Amino acid sequence: MIEKNGVVLVLSGPSGAGKSSLINKIADDIGDYYFSISTTTRPMREGEEEGVHYHFVSKEEFTADIENDNFLEYATVHGNYYGTSLKPVRKALSEGKLVIFDIDVQGNMAIKNRLGDITTSVFITPPTLSELKRRLDNRSTDTQEVIAGRLKMATREIQRTSEYDFIVVNDDLDVAAEVLRQVAVTARLKIPHDKINEFVQNWEDL
Amino acid sequence: MIEKNGVVLVLSGPSGAGKSSLINKIADDIGDYYFSISTTTRPMREGEEEGVHYHFVSKEEFTADIENDNFLEYATVHGNYYGTSLKPVRKALSEGKLVIFDIDVQGNMAIKNRLGDITTSVFITPPTLSELKRRLDNRSTDTQEVIAGRLKMATREIQRTSEYDFIVVNDDLDVAAEVLRQVAVTARLKIPHDKINEFVQNWEDL
Repeated sequence: MIEKNGVVLVLSGPSGAGKSSLINKIADDIGDYYFSISTTTRPMREGEEEGVHYHFVSKEEFTADIENDNFLEYATVHGNYYGTSLKPVRKALSEGKLVIFDIDVQGNMAIKNRLGDITTSVFITPPTLSELKRRLDNRSTDTQEVIAGRLKMATREIQRTSEYDFIVVNDDLDVAAEVLRQVAVTARLKIPHDKINEFVQNWEDL
Repeated sequence: MIEKNGVVLVLSGPSGAGKSSLINKIADDIGDYYFSISTTTRPMREGEEEGVHYHFVSKEEFTADIENDNFLEYATVHGNYYGTSLKPVRKALSEGKLVIFDIDVQGNMAIKNRLGDITTSVFITPPTLSELKRRLDNRSTDTQEVIAGRLKMATREIQRTSEYDFIVVNDDLDVAAEVLRQVAVTARLKIPHDKINEFVQNWEDL
């Protein structure tokens, strides 16, 4: 048999699509998982925790990891680095975990290129743009300017949903959670190419 | 919401991997399905049934369908045409069925090219080559020459398992059936690109 291994589940979709609520709903049913969080060189703020809000690292470590091609993507904001490091991802994979990314369409492509053989990608979307607007308005955490930006971004991203393995229309939260649960459980069955190659080597045993 | 639609499940793997047994085990749990069968121009033999053993068509119909690019693949044997026609497949898809193909690695690539957005592919394999040999010997339906050919073919095909979404090692039939059931149920959640495009058109409703 082929030994168990970690796999990747990519979740994309506009802010307001309900990704966090969906993850919370299925969290108990998908086994051991690691939710990918960003790595940054900015100082930790009060109330923040290492490994919860960010992975906090030194500028030296960050730039060394850029050199070593350990970042899926990174950017500098106000002189601080922010990025998606593959180091904690690889650790979680080696522990057999389901690694969940909440990442945009560009991030999805980067993951596909690096970890495509073990990745299942899902685009989560509200049923309509006006429903998205309604949800963002209701949260009342964002200014109208921020909301306008999110709607614009959502309209751009939804053009690229065909780059995903599955699209989940989050109209009814329970229905959408059921679909995502099903997809996440099946995502576990992906086997990395190197393990398949190993299996093939051992297969020819005559 | 996005309307229901048919999807494709490709099963490949050597003769003796247990594909038929697996399909029988999960048949009651995967909803309405259509098992793709070949189309041929050879005359029906006694005991054969249209739509069970083959789709029997005239040479005129077959060659017209070749012209119309309706064949995934075809070949002539002793002056008769044999091929995998997309016509019954499209009919089953339009009825929302799960279309199951038992097809080789070349057929899998052809399906990926034509129906990739709604296709889930699974390579089913015995745990080892010697176990495959044992199973083929036990069936005692094939001559040693045929068995040798099947083993050679299996060894060639298993090199291409990384072209599949999932690989199922059929060591224990119940375990393998459980995995295939899970994959087949999730396969139902694929949405064709044209329906996604339609959804995207309607999405931007502000």
